[in-house]
Amino acid sequence: MANKVVTFGEIMLRLTPPNYLRFVQADSFDVTYGGGEANVATSLANYGEDAYFVTKVPDNPIGQAAINHLRRYGVHTDYIVKGGERLGIYFNEIGASQRPSLVVYDRSHSSISEAKAGDFDWEKILDGAKWFHFTGITPALGDDVAAACLEAVKTANKMGITVSCDLNYRKKLWSREKARIVMSELMQYVDISIGNEEDAADVFGIQAAESDITKGQLSMEGYKDVAQKLMEKFSLKGVAITLRESYSASDNGWSALYYDGKELYASRKYKVHIVDRVGGGDSFGGGLIYALLNGYNPQDAVEFAVAASCLKHTIVGDFNHVTVKEVENLAKGDASGRVQR
Amino acid sequence: MANKVVTFGEIMLRLTPPNYLRFVQADSFDVTYGGGEANVATSLANYGEDAYFVTKVPDNPIGQAAINHLRRYGVHTDYIVKGGERLGIYFNEIGASQRPSLVVYDRSHSSISEAKAGDFDWEKILDGAKWFHFTGITPALGDDVAAACLEAVKTANKMGITVSCDLNYRKKLWSREKARIVMSELMQYVDISIGNEEDAADVFGIQAAESDITKGQLSMEGYKDVAQKLMEKFSLKGVAITLRESYSASDNGWSALYYDGKELYASRKYKVHIVDRVGGGDSFGGGLIYALLNGYNPQDAVEFAVAASCLKHTIVGDFNHVTVKEVENLAKGDASGRVQR
Amino acid sequence: MANKVVTFGEIMLRLTPPNYLRFVQADSFDVTYGGGEANVATSLANYGEDAYFVTKVPDNPIGQAAINHLRRYGVHTDYIVKGGERLGIYFNEIGASQRPSLVVYDRSHSSISEAKAGDFDWEKILDGAKWFHFTGITPALGDDVAAACLEAVKTANKMGITVSCDLNYRKKLWSREKARIVMSELMQYVDISIGNEEDAADVFGIQAAESDITKGQLSMEGYKDVAQKLMEKFSLKGVAITLRESYSASDNGWSALYYDGKELYASRKYKVHIVDRVGGGDSFGGGLIYALLNGYNPQDAVEFAVAASCLKHTIVGDFNHVTVKEVENLAKGDASGRVQR
Amino acid sequence: MANKVVTFGEIMLRLTPPNYLRFVQADSFDVTYGGGEANVATSLANYGEDAYFVTKVPDNPIGQAAINHLRRYGVHTDYIVKGGERLGIYFNEIGASQRPSLVVYDRSHSSISEAKAGDFDWEKILDGAKWFHFTGITPALGDDVAAACLEAVKTANKMGITVSCDLNYRKKLWSREKARIVMSELMQYVDISIGNEEDAADVFGIQAAESDITKGQLSMEGYKDVAQKLMEKFSLKGVAITLRESYSASDNGWSALYYDGKELYASRKYKVHIVDRVGGGDSFGGGLIYALLNGYNPQDAVEFAVAASCLKHTIVGDFNHVTVKEVENLAKGDASGRVQR
Amino acid sequence: MANKVVTFGEIMLRLTPPNYLRFVQADSFDVTYGGGEANVATSLANYGEDAYFVTKVPDNPIGQAAINHLRRYGVHTDYIVKGGERLGIYFNEIGASQRPSLVVYDRSHSSISEAKAGDFDWEKILDGAKWFHFTGITPALGDDVAAACLEAVKTANKMGITVSCDLNYRKKLWSREKARIVMSELMQYVDISIGNEEDAADVFGIQAAESDITKGQLSMEGYKDVAQKLMEKFSLKGVAITLRESYSASDNGWSALYYDGKELYASRKYKVHIVDRVGGGDSFGGGLIYALLNGYNPQDAVEFAVAASCLKHTIVGDFNHVTVKEVENLAKGDASGRVQR
Amino acid sequence: MANKVVTFGEIMLRLTPPNYLRFVQADSFDVTYGGGEANVATSLANYGEDAYFVTKVPDNPIGQAAINHLRRYGVHTDYIVKGGERLGIYFNEIGASQRPSLVVYDRSHSSISEAKAGDFDWEKILDGAKWFHFTGITPALGDDVAAACLEAVKTANKMGITVSCDLNYRKKLWSREKARIVMSELMQYVDISIGNEEDAADVFGIQAAESDITKGQLSMEGYKDVAQKLMEKFSLKGVAITLRESYSASDNGWSALYYDGKELYASRKYKVHIVDRVGGGDSFGGGLIYALLNGYNPQDAVEFAVAASCLKHTIVGDFNHVTVKEVENLAKGDASGRVQR
Repeated sequence: MANKVVTFGEIMLRLTPPNYLRFVQADSFDVTYGGGEANVATSLANYGEDAYFVTKVPDNPIGQAAINHLRRYGVHTDYIVKGGERLGIYFNEIGASQRPSLVVYDRSHSSISEAKAGDFDWEKILDGAKWFHFTGITPALGDDVAAACLEAVKTANKMGITVSCDLNYRKKLWSREKARIVMSELMQYVDISIGNEEDAADVFGIQAAESDITKGQLSMEGYKDVAQKLMEKFSLKGVAITLRESYSASDNGWSALYYDGKELYASRKYKVHIVDRVGGGDSFGGGLIYALLNGYNPQDAVEFAVAASCLKHTIVGDFNHVTVKEVENLAKGDASGRVQR
Repeated sequence: MANKVVTFGEIMLRLTPPNYLRFVQADSFDVTYGGGEANVATSLANYGEDAYFVTKVPDNPIGQAAINHLRRYGVHTDYIVKGGERLGIYFNEIGASQRPSLVVYDRSHSSISEAKAGDFDWEKILDGAKWFHFTGITPALGDDVAAACLEAVKTANKMGITVSCDLNYRKKLWSREKARIVMSELMQYVDISIGNEEDAADVFGIQAAESDITKGQLSMEGYKDVAQKLMEKFSLKGVAITLRESYSASDNGWSALYYDGKELYASRKYKVHIVDRVGGGDSFGGGLIYALLNGYNPQDAVEFAVAASCLKHTIVGDFNHVTVKEVENLAKGDASGRVQR
Repeated sequence: MANKVVTFGEIMLRLTPPNYLRFVQADSFDVTYGGGEANVATSLANYGEDAYFVTKVPDNPIGQAAINHLRRYGVHTDYIVKGGERLGIYFNEIGASQRPSLVVYDRSHSSISEAKAGDFDWEKILDGAKWFHFTGITPALGDDVAAACLEAVKTANKMGITVSCDLNYRKKLWSREKARIVMSELMQYVDISIGNEEDAADVFGIQAAESDITKGQLSMEGYKDVAQKLMEKFSLKGVAITLRESYSASDNGWSALYYDGKELYASRKYKVHIVDRVGGGDSFGGGLIYALLNGYNPQDAVEFAVAASCLKHTIVGDFNHVTVKEVENLAKGDASGRVQR
Repeated sequence: MANKVVTFGEIMLRLTPPNYLRFVQADSFDVTYGGGEANVATSLANYGEDAYFVTKVPDNPIGQAAINHLRRYGVHTDYIVKGGERLGIYFNEIGASQRPSLVVYDRSHSSISEAKAGDFDWEKILDGAKWFHFTGITPALGDDVAAACLEAVKTANKMGITVSCDLNYRKKLWSREKARIVMSELMQYVDISIGNEEDAADVFGIQAAESDITKGQLSMEGYKDVAQKLMEKFSLKGVAITLRESYSASDNGWSALYYDGKELYASRKYKVHIVDRVGGGDSFGGGLIYALLNGYNPQDAVEFAVAASCLKHTIVGDFNHVTVKEVENLAKGDASGRVQR
Repeated sequence: MANKVVTFGEIMLRLTPPNYLRFVQADSFDVTYGGGEANVATSLANYGEDAYFVTKVPDNPIGQAAINHLRRYGVHTDYIVKGGERLGIYFNEIGASQRPSLVVYDRSHSSISEAKAGDFDWEKILDGAKWFHFTGITPALGDDVAAACLEAVKTANKMGITVSCDLNYRKKLWSREKARIVMSELMQYVDISIGNEEDAADVFGIQAAESDITKGQLSMEGYKDVAQKLMEKFSLKGVAITLRESYSASDNGWSALYYDGKELYASRKYKVHIVDRVGGGDSFGGGLIYALLNGYNPQDAVEFAVAASCLKHTIVGDFNHVTVKEVENLAKGDASGRVQR
Repeated sequence: MANKVVTFGEIMLRLTPPNYLRFVQADSFDVTYGGGEANVATSLANYGEDAYFVTKVPDNPIGQAAINHLRRYGVHTDYIVKGGERLGIYFNEIGASQRPSLVVYDRSHSSISEAKAGDFDWEKILDGAKWFHFTGITPALGDDVAAACLEAVKTANKMGITVSCDLNYRKKLWSREKARIVMSELMQYVDISIGNEEDAADVFGIQAAESDITKGQLSMEGYKDVAQKLMEKFSLKGVAITLRESYSASDNGWSALYYDGKELYASRKYKVHIVDRVGGGDSFGGGLIYALLNGYNPQDAVEFAVAASCLKHTIVGDFNHVTVKEVENLAKGDASGRVQR
């Protein structure tokens, strides 16, 4: 039976020049909609869960189009509030080889960033839910959103709902200092922390003794150290860390670790030839939540989550359009890419 | 020899669903850039004048793309200031038959709307210019822009430069009351007023005794009355009024009047099968400025301007990509649309 | 509060050459999904009703894409059954001027056409519903589907749910004789009949004395006669007749009549410049059901339905993407197509 | 049984900005291939005749693509010679409403224009043929091509093959004087002359007493006079004249006349809403040749030819993709454009 | 001089989401046509042979478009029969990296699958032919097609025409048992067998002692063993085996073996970065037939065939659009991909 | 402050089939404009220099579109002459993996190739310039262009302007003998020579003792020898050599050398996954000129130039759309392609 999962955050209009064009060359933009928590919700809907995405969008056709995009992929939009000024936008130029992808944000003054705590009735929204998820982007949008987020996690705690948070530090949205203060309070109510290899350091100043990213040297001991510190600081139940190796804008290594307080579980590493890497981390989160919700053991859970996000890198847009069966196929070892007839 | 003409206002990113799709259906948007005064500048560049467009755009690739778009069509961008938060956007859904076109504005907080008067050195900008043009949209963007606009027209007056204004009332940007106060001051420095059949009433409360738009009854006497009142109120040298008859979103009637204080000159009326009607009024302004700058008599001037804007309705985007020769061909009577080999 | 409405029929993959290309010229097909009853459901979802579409689609990505298409536009897909061989397809070449649009059906052996009566639990599906709608296409798909349809209308009758039927005779699916037998039984349970000017004659042999379509002479008395006969034959509560005048593939006249047993209400007639005429009749049905469900008087109801379907002709695809407000604007008289800013 | 028909001329690469864009706006061009005699050959192939197109194209992938385009639509390419410098190109901007379509030719130095008479073995090419067709464009390409053309018509005459010529005067290719000299010799061998209302005057100085095209006054007597003079001058068996009324680039009137030496047969007149008017005259020629080859009487022949070319105006590209049945449907009176299911 | 080659099988409409989109994301499908034996015929036409493709397609515009597609690339379509219900379709989603390509077949009830033996006059079709080719897909389509196939190979044998068969086992079409029975009879008449590393085992249960595909261990001895067994069982003249190493959906290794009863000739191995791998095996078949028809020695033949199919992986669609010269260039060693100016 | 740089040569219309299609498959071509010296000018405009491109284009919309394309990217077009017959065209098929890219030139008779020396007033054009650049393509276009080029470099020398030349030997344009004679005279006036590893040998017969390109063995000593000989022969100030290793059409190695008469400076080598490699050499030239103009030391200059051209390989079209900052980022070592937010 499907589990009710609730995620809370921003969904943006994403505008992407087609065919590797640069912004100044483009005469059209491909249109999709996405954002950290919406991406996680879509992953879960694709896996058959009852995923609800909570946000605020303007009461105009652009806001409606964002809702329609979520509905198309099975996400419940019942608790989305309409109002405010505008839908946030991000422009996304797809890089290749040594040319990095470029993201230009135009998200200020968005309806969700100016939402008020009272816009969301958390008791009603979370009624019957098994899991609540947000990322570090949501509280970074503004003080009122941060307050709404705090109310949400407190309510979730009270109702016995598991809470996960993807740290997702964005330096364009807030300073490290501001992030540390706000996130430290929110993390009190979090059970599962997700982050990339830099997030813990960026937000909480937690660093692994030996890790040296610029040299590409990744020490398992170092990551275990980081996970351990995070877990203790916030009484977490689990810590997941994604590990991206950027060989170029076209080719990445991708793997992850999961720490359950006892052991560090390392996934298989995939060499991915990239179609669209936006939402890679979110698809890991979606996979991990699905696996933990459905009783996978830690090793299987991190393998499922990494296989899911490996596939995401081959899919256009922010959302990860894969089924449980497709993820399982890859997680169980068939990475040959042979035609499925 | 080319005349230096300066226009001042906003250029926006325009996003349009292709092939008559509605916003909620679109998976891509056609990209162009435009805005009232930028459109006029482009018309003039296409006619061979030295057209300068003055604005402020963000210092990011989207702002640069707007500049590149202007340069592509020969508009000088030397006085465009870089800075501020974002480029204004408007979403434009193309209507058909009984379904109206839809414009969703997302222009708040744009770089130009938050520009300061000090951003523009009008003495330098207007040095050597023959003509300065703005529309009622520019001062509506914000008090600081209105102040910059006022400084511009005062400087122009001092330097003996002809000033034209397209009233262009936009109820989403400001109230009739606010518009009247601000525009009344600016109009002191204006020589040529351009507007559609409703602008004078909307902004200044000037109404023709007999005109009844909803009934489609257009009385020449009524229009002459309006033009006369406008001219007297602001000591103008000329008043142009465009007359649109909307049979449907696909087919319009299009003509105009020009009053020089003595006579009312009525143009030929075109029945246009519409490709893209945005910028129709601006292309009239561009044509009129060109004609007056180049010594056309009033009748020829209004015919040139109406023929130019008739052609604009057949051209994709905000800009009017036609040459003087193409406009003259139509103005002189060949509306047969026969293939030019 | 939203009303639950259930429609039952086939949804097909529609493949259309872009930009007026003929089939033999096309190197790509535009993809959408549609079918008579799915189109009606989407109209109602767009008007804010709780619309459920019931069908059977194959358990493969093409079937899933059809479901996603319905969800995107807010149609509930909870009762769609998965299984069977294939999704029906229709190829649709868009005509222009004197060149007619062309439809090539490839719908045999579709999952719905081979569905069994037991596939649908009508008591559960219709629980809480206010309205049930089907068209003459559904029972024409096959004997089992016709049986399922009969079970549905009988259940609806038992539960006091209003039943509407769009006669929609398709000569490629069944003979007039077969249609008459099957439809005559189904019509026993129908309250509101919808059809074009030929359907009543095609299916039931009911003809107006004076109507002569080939001459384009439409007599109100004749239509009233047809409606009266239909109403009496099947104890209907209302009969709607759509009237299409095909000037060409690009331009049509469009209006309708509604007979409530007492008076014949004639709508305004629209001259439509066509973008996509498929689904025109269905959008009339959707509009009429909405209006009758929401207590419109007969004249307002037929005006709403005709205005809705007038707009449909300007929208790409089978579905009618318009809001109640947009339909009302047109129904109340603004057909000017002026830009909505 | 299919008749062998041979046409001789140039096929060019045609480059067209999509979606009504002007040349300076386009970032892509739609690609097709066409030319007067190739268009006629394709019409005949579509009607089931064995149509052979003779030309010379460069031995490179662009020349091959032109051949492939002909083959795709069933034209035999066995006698096409490979060699020379380049494939001629024409750029074609699609107009709308008052904006005319624009053709920019880049056809100089094409392989066919520099072909030598010896490139073509006419006895072999014409073996078994029933009809040979060329237009006034072919001899205008250059003296050697004119010589080849002359050899072709002489051979055809000797072999008893009917010869038709579409006068098709192009002022960019040669002067009226040059045209008159060359065409006068070629016309000695022609049986059926085709032309628009201006060709006879342009090439041979033959004018109708009363015709005044600029005033749109078309006198039947005048046309009969022209046809009569042409027929006598060159001992023709039939003269066809197409009559285009250009209301605008979007809407034209289209009809034709056929004179058999006794009577003038006037076709029905179509008002066409244009998709692509290039090749309109050629599709008339193709229709007329088909009709005369298959024993239609003069009235039916001109109706078939005009209906065929009416349909061409609704089809993208130079070629007329219609079947005999589709043309007959229209010629017999169904211009309603009703959907064919 | 060109050799007449005949191939017999199914051609399907292929629908592919563009730009790596998944089926559920696509709003358009790229359209092409293909199928094993049609692909082989096109290869041979591109190499200058007189290639005839025999099949049955519906008498509608979709069937015509398939014919046109074949003609475009020079395949003779004279013996294609028209009739039956529908053209088979396959939906093809292009994979990338770890995401496999996906094929959804919708080919049941196709005209060819329901063709009767009497539809094809093999004596006439094969008259003058040098080679007949089919794949294991053709007899799998249905018993009547299998019978037609048997009649074809018997006739070919009688007429002294070389027969080749690509085993091409498709488990969705028939069981291994059924395949073994039917294919065993057909193989009696075959001279050259083609297959991938699994086909011989799937269809005839012939396995190499040491081969272990899942481990990627390919033993030359093992393949020689398989080839030897096949050859003896069916008195073949040659056995070709293609060897695909699927590193991912984006990158494959590709090579082949040819056994002439005496020696096993191994080709060079290419690492291919894939554009479109459908038709890879067929392009090998086309290359091999060309080489053997034109007297290449075994080593050169297998190198030509592998180079041809290596190039196919870089070409969009099922067909292999390369010339003999392009294949030779690669086969002779230039794999540098340097620009050819 | 920006430096005035002048480049002289041909700009062509470039037509490219989209999405890796071959010419014979394409129904549209992507449109861009480019040519060696125009590409260099655009690079310099993107780096903030005042770049002027000098050429001759036809006075038609295609010529205008080429000018607009240059203006869009900030190149000054003031000295472009209008006239002549046509704009040169090149067709560019994008290769992949083992399939090479294909270029079909159609540039004969272009306006620039038939320009006369008198078309360009070099004293005026070069007034205030710091640098003049041309490539070996320009004098190869025809004797008159070569004469104009000679006049340009002589004038530049007289005015103390640095002159650079990219040897760029094109065997389709002239023989080695003709090239040697013409280039030897022009090189008298050149300061900086740029070329690939084969140009010096092709044009001047200068060969490194040990270099063996076909074996891929590149000896630093050999290149130093070549550079030394070139420098002495023409009294150069610097010699740059680009080194391309073609692993396939999709993947190349790319590096360069710079010799200042004393030392040979070797750049880092990039492995590039190619989006569009046309203009790769030109972007190196643009980068080198920028670096030398702005006082970079030789090592930094060659690193900047190679990083710039590495990025070019990831950008669609001939032009290199990158900023100084983007090049510096890569040159300073960040080749990770991580998303820039």
